[in-house]
Formats: sequence, C-alpha cells, structure tokens
Amino acid sequence: MPDRLIENEGRVLRVNGQRFHAVWLADNAPSSQRTPALAAPLNNIRLLTANLVGDSVALTFAPDSTPLSFSLKWLKDHAYDTPKERSEGHMPAGSTPWGSTIKAAMPTAPFPTLKAYEATQLSWLDAIRSYGLAKVTETAGPVHEIIEIFTPAECAVTSNGNDSRAPELSLEIITCAKDEEESTVHLSDGFACAIRLKNEDPEGFAALAHHSASFVFADQTGRPFTARAPLVSLLPEGTIAAIHFAPQSAAPLTDVPFEQMEVYYRAYRHFSELVDSPEMQISVTLKEGEALVIENTRILRGTTDSHTAQRTFADRNSLLASLTALETTP
Amino acid sequence: MPDRLIENEGRVLRVNGQRFHAVWLADNAPSSQRTPALAAPLNNIRLLTANLVGDSVALTFAPDSTPLSFSLKWLKDHAYDTPKERSEGHMPAGSTPWGSTIKAAMPTAPFPTLKAYEATQLSWLDAIRSYGLAKVTETAGPVHEIIEIFTPAECAVTSNGNDSRAPELSLEIITCAKDEEESTVHLSDGFACAIRLKNEDPEGFAALAHHSASFVFADQTGRPFTARAPLVSLLPEGTIAAIHFAPQSAAPLTDVPFEQMEVYYRAYRHFSELVDSPEMQISVTLKEGEALVIENTRILRGTTDSHTAQRTFADRNSLLASLTALETTP
Repeated sequence: MPDRLIENEGRVLRVNGQRFHAVWLADNAPSSQRTPALAAPLNNIRLLTANLVGDSVALTFAPDSTPLSFSLKWLKDHAYDTPKERSEGHMPAGSTPWGSTIKAAMPTAPFPTLKAYEATQLSWLDAIRSYGLAKVTETAGPVHEIIEIFTPAECAVTSNGNDSRAPELSLEIITCAKDEEESTVHLSDGFACAIRLKNEDPEGFAALAHHSASFVFADQTGRPFTARAPLVSLLPEGTIAAIHFAPQSAAPLTDVPFEQMEVYYRAYRHFSELVDSPEMQISVTLKEGEALVIENTRILRGTTDSHTAQRTFADRNSLLASLTALETTP
Repeated sequence: MPDRLIENEGRVLRVNGQRFHAVWLADNAPSSQRTPALAAPLNNIRLLTANLVGDSVALTFAPDSTPLSFSLKWLKDHAYDTPKERSEGHMPAGSTPWGSTIKAAMPTAPFPTLKAYEATQLSWLDAIRSYGLAKVTETAGPVHEIIEIFTPAECAVTSNGNDSRAPELSLEIITCAKDEEESTVHLSDGFACAIRLKNEDPEGFAALAHHSASFVFADQTGRPFTARAPLVSLLPEGTIAAIHFAPQSAAPLTDVPFEQMEVYYRAYRHFSELVDSPEMQISVTLKEGEALVIENTRILRGTTDSHTAQRTFADRNSLLASLTALETTP
C-alpha cells in the first residue's frame, strides 16, 4: 500500500504523522546513496513508491527512479512538520538563563583535572554552553593552555595564519591583571536580562530588537572603529543570538525612527539597570592562577567595571565542536 | 522666542525642520559638556529653553538647568526624523553591487605603490568597502605584509593574544596555492545575487531571509563544527549584513516550516544558479606574487571551485577603521 505514505501527487511523504517533501528527501539523501541525479533536486521531483522495510522507509523517485532509503529514527530526529518555537526572544537550545544565585554554584574546574579527564571537560564545556561562563583554577602556564582544552594546538587560528574556516572569536578568557593580587569583574547574563525586559516591557524589548544601535571607539592608534547592530540580535526564528551593549562606545542613535525614540530610551535604561541589578549581577574575583571563560556575545561586564583584568579571545565554534565530539564519543 | 523651537511640553526640539528628543540630546551631549546629571538621562528630562546662537543652538534642561550647546551642522548630520530606507534587502551604505562586468575594471594595486602612497591605499581600501574585493600584485613577502597595509603590526589580533576588542575575521586573503604556477578562483557578489533574487522572486527571497539554514562540517581532527544562520542575514532595517551559502556544508533544513519548504528550495536553487551564472560570476587567476582580498561574508566562491588556493583571515573592522582614518585626515 505505498499510496498510504505518499501524498499530494508524489510531492510529500508521510511517516509516523510527519510530512517530508520529495525535494527535501532528495537533497538529504544519505551520503552513501547520493547520485548525480540528486545533486541539485528540482521542485518537480516526485515520489513514485514508498515502502516501510524494517525500521527504514524505501523510496523511489521520478523522473529517474533513483532509489533511496531513510531510517525512521533519522526522519523523526530531523522532522520539520511540527511548528517550532518562533516567539521573539527565546534562549538558544542547550542554554539556561541565570541570575545572581548562580554565584553559589559557579561552574569551576581545576586546570590539572580539566586537562586529565574527559568527564570533567564534558561538564565544564557544557556549563559554558548552558550559562555562557565557567571558571578555571590552579592554572600555572600561559592562557593558551586553557584554550587548548577545547582547541587542539594544531587547530589554533590566528588572524594572520592559514586556515580552512573563519573563526568566530567570541569567547573571552579573563585573567587577573598583571602586577595585581586579584581582579574583580562584575558579570550578568545578557540573554537573561533581555528575557526579563521582554516580560516586563514587551514594547521596549521590541524597540531594542528591531532597530540598530551604532558604536564607535578609537583603538590605541586612534583609528575609529565603528559598528552597527541591534542591542538584542535575534535569528529569524526569534532565538536570541547576541547582545550588543557597550555604553562606553555608544554613538548617536540614528536608526531609531522619531516615533520609537522615547520607547527605545525607556527600554535601554531599563536594560542597563537590569545588567547592574543585584538580582542579575555577580562579582567574581580572580586571583593569580584563576581564569574565567565567558561568551562575550552573551555575558556582559558591569557598566562600572574598571576593565583592568586581562582579556584573551578564542573561538567559540571550536569549543562547541569539541563538546559535541565528546558528547558523541561512544 | 524659545518656544518656537520647543515642542511637546519640552520633550522635543525642532530645528531646521528636524525634531530631536530631549532625552536623545542629553544622551548625546558633546563630551566636553557632559555632566553627571546627563550620564543616564531619564525620559522625564525636559527642555526649558532653546536659542539659536550663530551656527549653534543653546539649550537648557529641567529638572537641573544643565546648559548644552549643539552645532546645527552636527544635528543635521545626525538627524533621525526623516524616514530611512527600511525595505528588506538593500545594500549597506558605501557599497555597490557588481556583476561579471567588474572583471574589466578589477580594483588592483601593486604592493610597492600601495605601501608607499596614502592616496593608493585610500582608493584600494574604498574598493574593498564598495565591491567587497580588490587585488594586489607585485607582492614579494609574506601575506601579513598585505594585512599590515590596513592593520598596523602592533594592532594585530591573534586568537590567543591579548586585545581590547574581539576581532571580526571576515576578510580573506587568497593567494596562489603552493607548488602551483597559478590558481583560479570563481567569485560572485553574494549581496548582488540576493538583490537579483529579491527582484525576480520576492517570496523566495523572503523565505531565505526569514528562516535559518543549518551547517555542519568536520575539521582536520574530525570535530563537528555546526552553525545556524539564514542564507541572507538582514539587519532589522533590512540592510543585507551577510550571506551564508555553503552547499558543501549544508545540513538538513529543520527551521523551515512545512508550508515554506518548497518555496525555500525554489529560491535556494535560484540563488545557487545566480552565483554560478556568467552574468554574475568572474574568474580570477592568481599568479605568484598576486593576492586577492575578499569580504567572505559577501563574496562567494563558485560552487565548483576546487579551493586549492591558500586562504588567510584578517579583521574587516580594522580595514574599515583605517579607511575612515584616511578619509578624515585633513
């Protein structure tokens, strides 16, 4: 009864209550089954037959009768027929918003243990994915030893080296300032502050997400660096992607229309107060031999921080790749 | 007649036909005139008086009578009262879309001239801002000599060095593959292709801009790098910000709802054909001593490119800062 699985004149397969388009199936052919005919599937591709065989579904397509087989589990894991979360301003998958109570449970690992045990690496890297930050203690060597926990030395990327991909340097490793006994930094979860703002002032949240802010600052040579990005950057699905909040580098707002300007300022001030509030902010003291890894597109420094602590940048995508590799190791 | 300039019970200043909010003016106080009272202006701040004095406007505010003066030219340059371009899918300011006819006028400079003359630097950097690419000939040294044209060596950023800002490594310097006489690359302007798609299939363009695509690839250690971003990334104002088009690394689309999937595939194929079309694509041959600088969030390699040419990444924001510094040098 192949017709039971095929709908819409061969354009759609339905298995286990989920629909899949013929063009999507052809484009996602398991690599071992790919043929030139599937390389760039046209929308006019059609399902000819569909049969359940064990825990797979066997398919043939017109116009050229290409056979393909998909596991039912793989189809279930990649289904797109169930409406997904698309509300504006939700946390990315795998991450959890936090407030000041995180201080009592700061994810921390001693460097020697982190270096020696995969289980420690797994939970420490998972904390960075979940909370956007984690601490290391008992470090003795240079900062790049911490980076090598999640980026093998041979994969290190430099701005003037050769590499097969563009690194996204949105991880920051904060260490104690030189010549000081300790450095204190004030941190809050920018994603959590954005979600609180959304709940307390939805109109204000929308103003910050739907208009670009402008930034300008001069580097040590006096060259003017500029940037243009919304304070809250969202993916099209509404997932929070990044926070751009840098009052010290704020340039005049010119992308906010006249009618929205007062709402924007109300929300900007509200957000700024959340960032510095006792409910949302923690202070972390770093002694010699301690370091903090933060995602700097999510975690915000307090607006009164002196920024004397030292900063080093690293590739967040590489950290997530190492975490995924550990998670999928049998 | 100060009342002529003040509207809406002191919340708005009107000069030369443009309106400015009291809160915006206070927040943008010229740095020499800043006072603690202006540090975090509240929406309840009000204009008390406003008087034209020469080519400036002198203001006082309630509640604390802070005096401020703005030049009329500065206000005109930063006005936000005139509706701006907000259509989905327009070019960023200062950039121009190109097709294959650019080949006859490829922006090119010999390295010795580029190094010696600011005027050559200015036009070469401006070409990169406008077209997203430019060529260098007569190079003799290592690639970082090219990068030092726009990033002074002392400002170079590495992924394990210290720096005051997170670099955005979206510039790519392409050079001839080692042990080969020349390398040929095929390039097209992803922004121009997106705008053509918008004109030829507005519904398809919207599908690519409003849903995230997924990417996965393994690096040399086998770690799975993943990414999630729309093929066409827009700022909230509709300005094209980046193109994410990497058919070799495409993962199954799961963020596109069932109802949009066929439209998405139609547009994806259309975009892919534009990228490789003779109208949009150019081929560039790089001999020894030649290099091409491209913005890799805008310029796309042909889908059949062998990728044997060598790639080095550099900081695009630093290039733009150097260009702005040259432009504003008296």
